[in-house]
Amino acid sequence: MKESLFALKGTFAHTPKPESFIFEEDSYLVCHQGRVEGIYPELPKAYENIHVYDFSDKLIIPGMCDMHLHAPQYAYRGIGMNIENPEWGTWFERYAFPDESRYADLDYARLAYTRFVDDWMKTTTTRGCIYATIHRPATLLLMELLADRGFAAYVGKVNMDRNSIPGLLETTEESISETLAWLDDCQDRFAEVKPMLTPRYTPSCSDELMEALGAIAIERNIPVQSHLSEGLDEIEWVYELKPGLSCYGQAYDMYHMFGSDVPAVMAHCVYPNDCEFDLMSRRKQLMVAHCPQSNFSSSGGVAPVKRYLKAGVQVGLGSDMAGSNTLSLLRIMADAVLASKALWAFTERKMDPYAKRNVLSLSEAFYLSTKGGGALWGDVGSFEDGFLLDAVVLDESRLKDLNERSFYERLERLILLSDDRDIVAKFINGRQVYG
Amino acid sequence: MKESLFALKGTFAHTPKPESFIFEEDSYLVCHQGRVEGIYPELPKAYENIHVYDFSDKLIIPGMCDMHLHAPQYAYRGIGMNIENPEWGTWFERYAFPDESRYADLDYARLAYTRFVDDWMKTTTTRGCIYATIHRPATLLLMELLADRGFAAYVGKVNMDRNSIPGLLETTEESISETLAWLDDCQDRFAEVKPMLTPRYTPSCSDELMEALGAIAIERNIPVQSHLSEGLDEIEWVYELKPGLSCYGQAYDMYHMFGSDVPAVMAHCVYPNDCEFDLMSRRKQLMVAHCPQSNFSSSGGVAPVKRYLKAGVQVGLGSDMAGSNTLSLLRIMADAVLASKALWAFTERKMDPYAKRNVLSLSEAFYLSTKGGGALWGDVGSFEDGFLLDAVVLDESRLKDLNERSFYERLERLILLSDDRDIVAKFINGRQVYG
Repeated sequence: MKESLFALKGTFAHTPKPESFIFEEDSYLVCHQGRVEGIYPELPKAYENIHVYDFSDKLIIPGMCDMHLHAPQYAYRGIGMNIENPEWGTWFERYAFPDESRYADLDYARLAYTRFVDDWMKTTTTRGCIYATIHRPATLLLMELLADRGFAAYVGKVNMDRNSIPGLLETTEESISETLAWLDDCQDRFAEVKPMLTPRYTPSCSDELMEALGAIAIERNIPVQSHLSEGLDEIEWVYELKPGLSCYGQAYDMYHMFGSDVPAVMAHCVYPNDCEFDLMSRRKQLMVAHCPQSNFSSSGGVAPVKRYLKAGVQVGLGSDMAGSNTLSLLRIMADAVLASKALWAFTERKMDPYAKRNVLSLSEAFYLSTKGGGALWGDVGSFEDGFLLDAVVLDESRLKDLNERSFYERLERLILLSDDRDIVAKFINGRQVYG
Repeated sequence: MKESLFALKGTFAHTPKPESFIFEEDSYLVCHQGRVEGIYPELPKAYENIHVYDFSDKLIIPGMCDMHLHAPQYAYRGIGMNIENPEWGTWFERYAFPDESRYADLDYARLAYTRFVDDWMKTTTTRGCIYATIHRPATLLLMELLADRGFAAYVGKVNMDRNSIPGLLETTEESISETLAWLDDCQDRFAEVKPMLTPRYTPSCSDELMEALGAIAIERNIPVQSHLSEGLDEIEWVYELKPGLSCYGQAYDMYHMFGSDVPAVMAHCVYPNDCEFDLMSRRKQLMVAHCPQSNFSSSGGVAPVKRYLKAGVQVGLGSDMAGSNTLSLLRIMADAVLASKALWAFTERKMDPYAKRNVLSLSEAFYLSTKGGGALWGDVGSFEDGFLLDAVVLDESRLKDLNERSFYERLERLILLSDDRDIVAKFINGRQVYG
């Protein structure tokens, strides 16, 4: 049952601003109706009778927001990152598309999605933007499973009316009508699990479909997610499919699905040209889902995150399961820092060996994975007063430090070394969902 | 007790050549006096009474060789990868040097090294090249602990007679005499744990010390390990300390510690100039310890591994604990592949968007971590006839695949997804040491 008023006791770490962590040592966070009422060194008199979850000696961090992942791909994570046999075809042809076509079978979907949701629970993630498949029943099932576990999420029935394989392809009419039927099914069904329009990417969706989806997005006020400028081949393909574009992003923007009318989460954004960068910085409801491990793995590239942030573009982190092999945003955060170091070394420092270090700090990466992505839901991703309480409790005892450490150091160790064994409890929207 | 004749039953995966994996499905590996006698689909008649370790349904891989790690740094792994407060100084000043100075205390050393050795056991690594500290008793203790557990290793008492902190600095005379005393203590003491001369790097060792160590190396026939071209600042510093060099490597080569007279393992080798590259390719007893995670983290750079291999330079993989935060060579292998993709994307493909993909394959990375590094010990790192039997048994049941997979796919998943929980047993030199 949801308690309307309670407190968490422990040491809190969060990033209201990306520049630095704030630590609240051995304190009480009071939660009222799902939101942070305040953090106090001692429990105030007025609250002395409320229930206190005692996590003394533990670190408590905001829940993380995974802004891009493919739930059906969890079943075959960690495969095909390094295809050595050319006869196997591409990763899409050999793994992604054949496996996604199996979600027409609701039994398979239940088995695979249950496993995904169970394992997602054992991470620091509390909410995310999820791609399902083209299948309406399986997508609805995924939403049910997420809602049952208490997750907050946007979930998309994927749209694909071209360039797929038989069994994973809709006609344009089907794709539109199934999307509408799905929205009718789910739009008001779950409190915290909501639909997101999900044209897979331009090569998968005809102009006619994109036009219809853009209209639905505006009419029903549904946010959108898609892929943008993930690879050089893909960008060329988009130019072939839609001659006359100055940048790939225009292929979404012309259909009102680039953060002009409704929020739009664009995954990857590794190779923006100047036109795209400029367009992105002007679209205030657009958010980049930065997926560093996936980008390294698929193309060796790194999205220019520091540049996006400087230009005021919103950025969150994404695992891009199964473009990466992990659901852990702690790992993705570490990858984001390493990727920014590589980008800096191979660009700015390449031009000037004495170039000032210009890389993501750990607090910036932490911000991206919490408050950065959380902005899609409003006041989410930090423990500031009034924010929705998403929290994860971490136990560092397994890491057995031999020395006294600062909170910053303890947190860095947890980010770099901890795994599912170290997660003690999880709260979403002020409700304990794990532990 | 060591059995002189036994068999392992299971599915074997190894890389006699870097180009591809060889899988021996559901077979028997016969081990005689610590070496692979052969792999058979059925147990030959002559062996029908020997003990068979039954690992049916498990994958068995060669033990891995960690060619560069600092055992004393394990205690504070995962800290200071991202120093945000300039007042803290460098990673060396804040963490590495103060912590290493604590190994003057044998009680602290015992606590920390026991933890390291215990946790190293829970990895796929069976042998390695380890830096201890400058302290002779603690170095000897580490060697004892490793020998007790059955590891094969080269261990170095570190030499440092300049540019360190008080408490972690020897006089030149001390450094030489302690090195000789240590060699007297350990050179013939352990069957599989051997000494390696370890001038930390040029900035830590005066010319006089280097000259003495080079003479000792030749006189006693002791291999050498050190750091080379890890960072741009370091390379400049070496040029300042030793004016007139054409490349950093010469600072080792002029003292016979660059693979001319005795084997030499050089860690990192990220930024070779043409002179260094040429010198490396001519020194046939030189091996590069490639440490991709550490290099990303410290400088954002990637060692040109494909170039080294093409030029015939020996290469192994190193965790560089605690320049990285992991002892897992499975993780380092994955990092090596990602790093090679970034290097390719930011160099060859930057020049030519249509450049042929030129990255480390998974089998190449596997080869580096097994037979590549293993070459330092001779016939080590694969299951070819006559090779020393180092083997690790992996259980994939926790990964719960929903589909039938090829052996290649099963192995890729284990490399990318498994952790200490999935390691069932370990053999070193034909002796079970774990599980």
